[in-house]
Amino acid sequence: MIGFTRRQTVEAILDRRPMAPRAGGRAFAPANIALCKYWGKRDEELNLPRNGSLSVSLGDLGSEAELSAIDAPADAVELGGRPLPPAAPFAARVSGYLDLFRPSPSFRFRLRTRNTVPTAAGFASSASGFAALALALDDLFGWRLPPERLSVLARLGSGSACRSVFPGFVEWVAGEREDGLDSAARPLPETWPSLRVGLWTVSEDEKPVGSRAGMKATVETSPLYPAWPGTAARDLEAIRAAIRARDVEALGRAAEGNALAMHATMIAARPALCYWRPESVRAMDAVRAARADGVPVYFTMDAGPNLKLLFEGAAEADVTGRFPGLRVVRPFA
Amino acid sequence: MIGFTRRQTVEAILDRRPMAPRAGGRAFAPANIALCKYWGKRDEELNLPRNGSLSVSLGDLGSEAELSAIDAPADAVELGGRPLPPAAPFAARVSGYLDLFRPSPSFRFRLRTRNTVPTAAGFASSASGFAALALALDDLFGWRLPPERLSVLARLGSGSACRSVFPGFVEWVAGEREDGLDSAARPLPETWPSLRVGLWTVSEDEKPVGSRAGMKATVETSPLYPAWPGTAARDLEAIRAAIRARDVEALGRAAEGNALAMHATMIAARPALCYWRPESVRAMDAVRAARADGVPVYFTMDAGPNLKLLFEGAAEADVTGRFPGLRVVRPFA
Repeated sequence: MIGFTRRQTVEAILDRRPMAPRAGGRAFAPANIALCKYWGKRDEELNLPRNGSLSVSLGDLGSEAELSAIDAPADAVELGGRPLPPAAPFAARVSGYLDLFRPSPSFRFRLRTRNTVPTAAGFASSASGFAALALALDDLFGWRLPPERLSVLARLGSGSACRSVFPGFVEWVAGEREDGLDSAARPLPETWPSLRVGLWTVSEDEKPVGSRAGMKATVETSPLYPAWPGTAARDLEAIRAAIRARDVEALGRAAEGNALAMHATMIAARPALCYWRPESVRAMDAVRAARADGVPVYFTMDAGPNLKLLFEGAAEADVTGRFPGLRVVRPFA
Repeated sequence: MIGFTRRQTVEAILDRRPMAPRAGGRAFAPANIALCKYWGKRDEELNLPRNGSLSVSLGDLGSEAELSAIDAPADAVELGGRPLPPAAPFAARVSGYLDLFRPSPSFRFRLRTRNTVPTAAGFASSASGFAALALALDDLFGWRLPPERLSVLARLGSGSACRSVFPGFVEWVAGEREDGLDSAARPLPETWPSLRVGLWTVSEDEKPVGSRAGMKATVETSPLYPAWPGTAARDLEAIRAAIRARDVEALGRAAEGNALAMHATMIAARPALCYWRPESVRAMDAVRAARADGVPVYFTMDAGPNLKLLFEGAAEADVTGRFPGLRVVRPFA
């Protein structure tokens, strides 16, 4: 079966909007931490997920993007002030995405992007990066697209980028359409000012397998994966309810269970895909030990070795005392 | 629903055989390492499994049991030469099992048992222990039951004990009957003289949760468990085929994948059940690194932190060079 292409999505969304660039476009998008994970695609081309997911955006930690038109033989991509060779993986991926938006075949972009979130070790810089890029394209061309539509454009760059278009709690509705036009993020109305996210880097080892490839291998080879989409659907519902109730224990237990279920599907892949380092096991034990001592703290983990802790402001002193070096984020500050 | 009791199983199997003890009974039963794991019961009382399993017995590593009748108010249980108080967990479990076989309510047993396999850290001493006990009962009372029937009696003490009644490769057929009389082990005809099992103790920490309780919690709370029985059925078929072909790579990959799938179901339990220690993750990585260097070695793990390596005699020098301290067993020597 030949599915829909990314270009068809872009044409449907731009709907003959003008492609005349202004002097420049710029945008910021936050990183996001999934409380209910996106894990497994039903369409590789369009980054359509097999399950809905839910995240919290990290305030001013994220990516900035500045975009302009240049007269040059190739796109010029700068990351953190450093020009990248066109063959660098990130530059090549960005140019492939920008191919979808060139007003003419010879049109070239300059992109200056900068992450305010640690890029290594699974801090989802591709999510904030592609979200910022989609928003900067909207600014450059003056489209003024509704955010839900920009979310779809961001998804074409990196699945979880669709969630980074919004601050706060964000749900990515999986959608059902083959063209993916109903697969977009939407912000949830709730805020939770006392919620804290602690970024805990336990290992800076490079990941053996990127999350895109890991997701694909899990879907294709893990005998436990078939149980994942239903698990995620139930967790998503529990997490939505916990957010409505501002119940950190319910939120933490559901998010932790969801992350572990995701890792379990990978561990059962063949060959196994284990993003955990020895330090990850020690860190998870330490979080459980903190809870046994009465500190209400929970963890989630993306496709990597590091932990993100979930807790409330009332527990912040206890948590930072136990886990020194934690970078504490206030998503609703 | 009221199911069948253990006592009904014993009555059906003994079928009015005499209950007059001889001077003494004794037996040895080997420990066994499951290549396809037993994980999850369909009947807690009778230890009936949700999936078939397949193991290799460990030659002369196992348990010896000596049984006699005594005139005393309570059973006398000795483990490794040390008398146990009746309230010790092992003694209480043994006496509860022996209750099924007392010729009269006041009849008391003396059991002297000794393990030749490390008892801590998941080396399945309850499997060899209850198998030796069932065989010693048969010897004490002179029943001369067929081994498949003794396998059923051993199962009533500890599920995986039913496999320890036989040497070599052993398959536990899950069975379908509610009374469990068709749920017994049978020996496979194949031998594999060059096969080696390496016992690698990476942690002697006590397990936080016993495997009986861990199994129950996983069945009841893990959202990935429903995918396990089908996974095990496919792995069992692959392992049987690998044994027929004496294909260590096929055997190793299937056994390793099966063990990881079992651990994955536990990791996804709620709360999570993670038997891995940091050292376990390091050890699994070391086995994968050995394979990447061309050494055909695979691992399996029971519900504990330690590894059992699978390899052939031709790789033994490479394996022991890389993993010093390994206790190498030749199941078919």
